[in-house]
Amino acid sequence: MVGLTAAPPAAGLRQQKLNNGASQQASNGAQEAQGISALGRERLHFIPCLPEVLRGPHEIEEGDSRECLGGHGVVCSLFPRLSTSQNGESPLKMVSLRPASSHGVEQRPLRLGVVLSGGQAPGGHNVIIGLHDYLQRWHPGSTLVGFLSGPRGVMRNDYKILEAQELDAYRNQGGFHLICSGRDKISKPEELTAAEKTAKAHDLDGIVVIGGDDSNTNAAVLAEHFLQQGLKTRVIGVPKTIDGDLKNADVSISFGFDTACKVYSEVIGNIMVDAMSAKKYYHFIRLMGRSASHITLECALQTHPQLALICEEIADMVAQRAELGKDFGVVLIPEGLVEFMHDVSALIAELNELMAAGVNPADQTAVVAHLTPESADLFCNLTPGIRSELLEERDPHGNVQVSHIETEKLLIKLVGLELARRKAAGTFGGKFAALAHFFGYEGRCSLPSNFDATYCNALGQAAGALMAAGRTGLMATVSNLQAPARKWTVGGTPLLSMMHLERRAGCDRPVIKKALVEMGSAPMNSYTASRAMWAIQDWCRSPGPIQFTGPSANMASMTLALELNDGLPCLLDDPQQADC
Amino acid sequence: MVGLTAAPPAAGLRQQKLNNGASQQASNGAQEAQGISALGRERLHFIPCLPEVLRGPHEIEEGDSRECLGGHGVVCSLFPRLSTSQNGESPLKMVSLRPASSHGVEQRPLRLGVVLSGGQAPGGHNVIIGLHDYLQRWHPGSTLVGFLSGPRGVMRNDYKILEAQELDAYRNQGGFHLICSGRDKISKPEELTAAEKTAKAHDLDGIVVIGGDDSNTNAAVLAEHFLQQGLKTRVIGVPKTIDGDLKNADVSISFGFDTACKVYSEVIGNIMVDAMSAKKYYHFIRLMGRSASHITLECALQTHPQLALICEEIADMVAQRAELGKDFGVVLIPEGLVEFMHDVSALIAELNELMAAGVNPADQTAVVAHLTPESADLFCNLTPGIRSELLEERDPHGNVQVSHIETEKLLIKLVGLELARRKAAGTFGGKFAALAHFFGYEGRCSLPSNFDATYCNALGQAAGALMAAGRTGLMATVSNLQAPARKWTVGGTPLLSMMHLERRAGCDRPVIKKALVEMGSAPMNSYTASRAMWAIQDWCRSPGPIQFTGPSANMASMTLALELNDGLPCLLDDPQQADC
Repeated sequence: MVGLTAAPPAAGLRQQKLNNGASQQASNGAQEAQGISALGRERLHFIPCLPEVLRGPHEIEEGDSRECLGGHGVVCSLFPRLSTSQNGESPLKMVSLRPASSHGVEQRPLRLGVVLSGGQAPGGHNVIIGLHDYLQRWHPGSTLVGFLSGPRGVMRNDYKILEAQELDAYRNQGGFHLICSGRDKISKPEELTAAEKTAKAHDLDGIVVIGGDDSNTNAAVLAEHFLQQGLKTRVIGVPKTIDGDLKNADVSISFGFDTACKVYSEVIGNIMVDAMSAKKYYHFIRLMGRSASHITLECALQTHPQLALICEEIADMVAQRAELGKDFGVVLIPEGLVEFMHDVSALIAELNELMAAGVNPADQTAVVAHLTPESADLFCNLTPGIRSELLEERDPHGNVQVSHIETEKLLIKLVGLELARRKAAGTFGGKFAALAHFFGYEGRCSLPSNFDATYCNALGQAAGALMAAGRTGLMATVSNLQAPARKWTVGGTPLLSMMHLERRAGCDRPVIKKALVEMGSAPMNSYTASRAMWAIQDWCRSPGPIQFTGPSANMASMTLALELNDGLPCLLDDPQQADC
Repeated sequence: MVGLTAAPPAAGLRQQKLNNGASQQASNGAQEAQGISALGRERLHFIPCLPEVLRGPHEIEEGDSRECLGGHGVVCSLFPRLSTSQNGESPLKMVSLRPASSHGVEQRPLRLGVVLSGGQAPGGHNVIIGLHDYLQRWHPGSTLVGFLSGPRGVMRNDYKILEAQELDAYRNQGGFHLICSGRDKISKPEELTAAEKTAKAHDLDGIVVIGGDDSNTNAAVLAEHFLQQGLKTRVIGVPKTIDGDLKNADVSISFGFDTACKVYSEVIGNIMVDAMSAKKYYHFIRLMGRSASHITLECALQTHPQLALICEEIADMVAQRAELGKDFGVVLIPEGLVEFMHDVSALIAELNELMAAGVNPADQTAVVAHLTPESADLFCNLTPGIRSELLEERDPHGNVQVSHIETEKLLIKLVGLELARRKAAGTFGGKFAALAHFFGYEGRCSLPSNFDATYCNALGQAAGALMAAGRTGLMATVSNLQAPARKWTVGGTPLLSMMHLERRAGCDRPVIKKALVEMGSAPMNSYTASRAMWAIQDWCRSPGPIQFTGPSANMASMTLALELNDGLPCLLDDPQQADC
């Protein structure tokens, strides 16, 4: 067993005072050359506020029982061990931490693994460091095994032992490069066996899976498998995704969403001011988020674009503004939109069938000859680039990969066609010049905001507490987020309780339900109440760059504030209280 | 004459203390709905440090004489009045401000115009406000006429009177939306006459032109015209461009460059960390800057990409990294690069000739038939989108508009072809998957950095001081930028001294010389010293978002620091001194 280094450089690092100005800059020249920026170095010294319950001895408290979100009976039958009693407790129960007079579990050293799964999200390093710090404090002598490049690392037993000194260089930093991530799944019998072999090789008490909806579904599968095989290895999930679609009664927000939306909103705000200053272009901006529009909604609330989600609505808005002499604006587009566009989805369905039937996609004349007249007309009016994207990209199931389609350019083309028709008919007299943008990768590895840095640290510590208590098949949760961070509550929610059944490849499969934007939700209501004004007035709001100090530094995302706090900002610190 | 409002709301605004937290947020709800963000509101209260010479009485001091950068005799013959004595002083002399026991010029009210010309750059509002504050302080009762939508506003006499209360809402804000900008030129005789009419209508003592190289060339033309016509209207330029190509012995940096590069570097840094975390893609990022690569160089120094500027160099770098098992990285591309790519520029030249000769660009078969074999081969291997861009976009002179070509996609295609050839030949065994980005509009309207906010305020005040002294045909300059802001010097440089002759449309024309990146300059040397390491090592540097408080808030751009300060940061404040 590899022990942790005895010296805690973290403490020294935290106590060291930052020197302002040139002398520090010069002395850090070598470090600079190799990478870390001045601001990145400042952020090493940020100390996330820790919920009070994690500051002293604590113990697990059982909470409400949960049912699955759908297909409860079927889901339970597929997870027989997770859905029946373990440790003498009832299954599918929420748990939370409460203060205790002494630490509720034995303070023996633990052997834990941790793995990052899926796309990057700001704060991932803080989860790992929170987990590490929890072990250092409550289970000294523990070992933390970091599996490399995602679930593949678990199956292949590619790992490195994570020690304090290395981790200190990643405190409050963006990216997943400490151990990297990957998109593999552990689901086939031989893959589960490989993971089991790794768990045994390290004599692991548990594995923490940091991931989105699919990765946490996979965490439940792994938890069930280990229970069935009689392994002591527990599995706890942590909710990660910038898309914001991992959300339910117990999980208010997945980490990374706050930071990523702030980065996108900064640059969208800049572009909105540019549109308003130059008065020349419509900017079409596609945003990441797969089929969910949470990012688009949050960025809309942050920046007040002249948004319309549907093609005909955009043309209406452009025409309406043209009558006011305004030939410019900004349109935000969620990347999943193309699936909801009737004409285009009909065309895509026809193309899928043609290509499955063996029509050569390189022969566009033959392709057009086989399309219905409506689809053929649409197809011929698209740009060569989009035609190629529709014909060339196929996923393993034979479908067009919609996320590879430059929806923003497609929309510009379609809106332009619609406005040309209206101009010919004499119902549009404006100009329409458009520019396309796509924001996605820009936000995934940003320095985490104070919110994400603090939230992730608490999530990591929560995972540690659940592991220490021998729990499995739970997602670590941090709640009461509308309160200052020290008042946050800490616990876990059964992964099964987030599941429903989805038809995939002809079978009903239990998966964690993706949370799409709900039409009646508080953030959506707030948006619909304003959209008509934002479409016509130029009430652009440019949020500016993420600040780490100053009044705006500790505000969490607007959708979270609207969901939890009636629109009042969620602040990490208590204005009445000097420190956290 | 319209007097300025007597009450100075600016002072009240400055003295008002910011309240932290929820109460302020709630009370500002209505203002929020219409636009300004919490951070934008914070920035209203930032007070740019003013160079000491502008804080008390000052007077003009004559400095060195200058020659034009090229074609001195010809340029002078084209500007007979500007190049001969005015006010009894020698022409083409630098001027600077020095402290005086009393204000050097009569403190009568002045009537000044101001116009924004060309693309947006962070800090434009601060120049206007600096000019306004100078007039308030030293020439109370003055009038400031803001011409709308660029030079067109001067010709058409579209304007609004700029008053303190309105200006206060734009302090330290991004964008040009106060009076907007435009790209028109005032050069034909009837246009000069229109401008003259406007100047007379407002009885203007002067017009301040805020613009880039072309706009300042135009400012010199206007100054000359007004002198020739015997108007009292003086013309002073202010150096604006994010491109960084308006730079010379007297102008260390144009405003906006610092902020825009910081915004691009933030998102490039995020993408670099993403590449390093996912290890899946090469990201090709095209950056604004027309034919100059200053932005690309600054961003490279800020973020340490695996950059290579030439196609073959990129392929070499990819192959070299593949041998180390690295199939990912980031490549920065200046938008003017395509002009320097031998194969592509040959193809473009052939296409220009074909289209001038009347070959139908819609008939690609005919186009290919007329190309040389090398160009035909290249053309057929391009994506349909790029083929269209090469064929469809023509500027008024019949040339391909290279800035409309998605160079990043072109490069990905060309590098892919080269690597496929190497793979077939057995000399490349890696993978090459690439993603394309373009950053430009994102940085032009950002909240200005502390540097740009301070620099622009000083520039505006400098323009006011030169106007008050009755000077014309000068560019306002603020120098000694390596020192803390209060030690900055203030003056003016003759616009003619920045000119040389350029062949345009068959004639030698006097224009302000565009400053391209110089191969032997300190920033370029710094880059070339590191590029080989950055290509292979993953020494990515993620600068993070612009901070307005804290240790990193007051650092100016790295290229400026390297040019002026031997690489030590230029800091607005003196670490030994509490306030500025």
